[in-house]
Amino acid sequence: MSDINPPTTRTRLVREADRAVYDRAAAYAILDEGFICHVGFVSDSQPFVIPTSYGRRDDNLYIHGSAASRMLRHLAQSLPVCVTVTLLDGLVLARSIFNHSMNYRSVVVLGNAVLVDDPAEKLDALRLLSEHILPGRWNDSRQPNEKELKATSVLRLPINEFSAKVRQGPPIDDEADYAFPTWAGVIPLETIAGIPINDPRLDPPREAPEYAKNYKRG
Amino acid sequence: MSDINPPTTRTRLVREADRAVYDRAAAYAILDEGFICHVGFVSDSQPFVIPTSYGRRDDNLYIHGSAASRMLRHLAQSLPVCVTVTLLDGLVLARSIFNHSMNYRSVVVLGNAVLVDDPAEKLDALRLLSEHILPGRWNDSRQPNEKELKATSVLRLPINEFSAKVRQGPPIDDEADYAFPTWAGVIPLETIAGIPINDPRLDPPREAPEYAKNYKRG
Repeated sequence: MSDINPPTTRTRLVREADRAVYDRAAAYAILDEGFICHVGFVSDSQPFVIPTSYGRRDDNLYIHGSAASRMLRHLAQSLPVCVTVTLLDGLVLARSIFNHSMNYRSVVVLGNAVLVDDPAEKLDALRLLSEHILPGRWNDSRQPNEKELKATSVLRLPINEFSAKVRQGPPIDDEADYAFPTWAGVIPLETIAGIPINDPRLDPPREAPEYAKNYKRG
Repeated sequence: MSDINPPTTRTRLVREADRAVYDRAAAYAILDEGFICHVGFVSDSQPFVIPTSYGRRDDNLYIHGSAASRMLRHLAQSLPVCVTVTLLDGLVLARSIFNHSMNYRSVVVLGNAVLVDDPAEKLDALRLLSEHILPGRWNDSRQPNEKELKATSVLRLPINEFSAKVRQGPPIDDEADYAFPTWAGVIPLETIAGIPINDPRLDPPREAPEYAKNYKRG
């Protein structure tokens, strides 16, 4: 790939270096398929890890939340943050317990998030977040009003220091173990969308839109 | 529920307190359904968030990894850690953008992990981790040898300080928005297992075991 991001001492993989992916295109494909990240921040020496949604545009990640939330109040101070996205693809059953593994794709982004102050960028980021999770929904919804925008904080995290890790394929056993008499292979895992459930207060009745009936990632 | 765990200032939910769950039984049901956690730790003031598997027995979480890994070497020093487990159940489509949400169940555990030194507890924890992810697999596999056990670290995190958060059900819109002309409801999400894929080196051919063919969580 053309755009290789050299690892720092903080993002260079110590182990399983063969699983490391440092190019942006591969990392962005993972970020674009997922929509839940786990955000790490430190408060009084204690790390906290909170799940939240996100969106990406170019070389920035956007997250949002209540302006009153602990996480948003904290991150708005531009303290160090870690955003991790993990896609789980399967359980890898080797012959030996030791070589059992998982197939997955993950990205870790380190940096300092900044509060988005500009109203146009803020609204744009909220649209981006919404469209990242569910393309088409923004225009079908009642748009945010002034009060709601004030109650929401948006943070931007530049994707400068990052690494990705990918494990795919069959188990890799020690050569001597291939004769061990057990089944080996992969149980694929996938997150799928079920049939949309109408809000009981939907009145008059409406059919769920295509983006809800055919929801799919990746 | 009988065993309520009073929140600390660090685990008390600041917002959406109606989504808070502080009883152990509810938190343990979430921990037992999931098997991937996101572990947060701090190194040189920088938080790191790393996905890994885990198991639970009684009031302890166990995680494991290479003794050489950055995370395990770090956590073995008994520094503060945060372990977060998130189960995603659906996208919640409200009439207003602002009231869009997700249905999820999550648990956050704070504490200090300790290295498991006792060989019997360590082996037991590895079996627990394996059986937590895939019941029945341990006995079908080649057991860990001395060298593998030495290369693996196991950590125990007591589940003392924790909180859980649960959001389920239909969207909750502002009363005035219920007349807004759009579909509203929930897109359920579920992680499902596909048909097991044989290791290309499976020789002689074997049928995948029942625990692989009928893999299911929850």
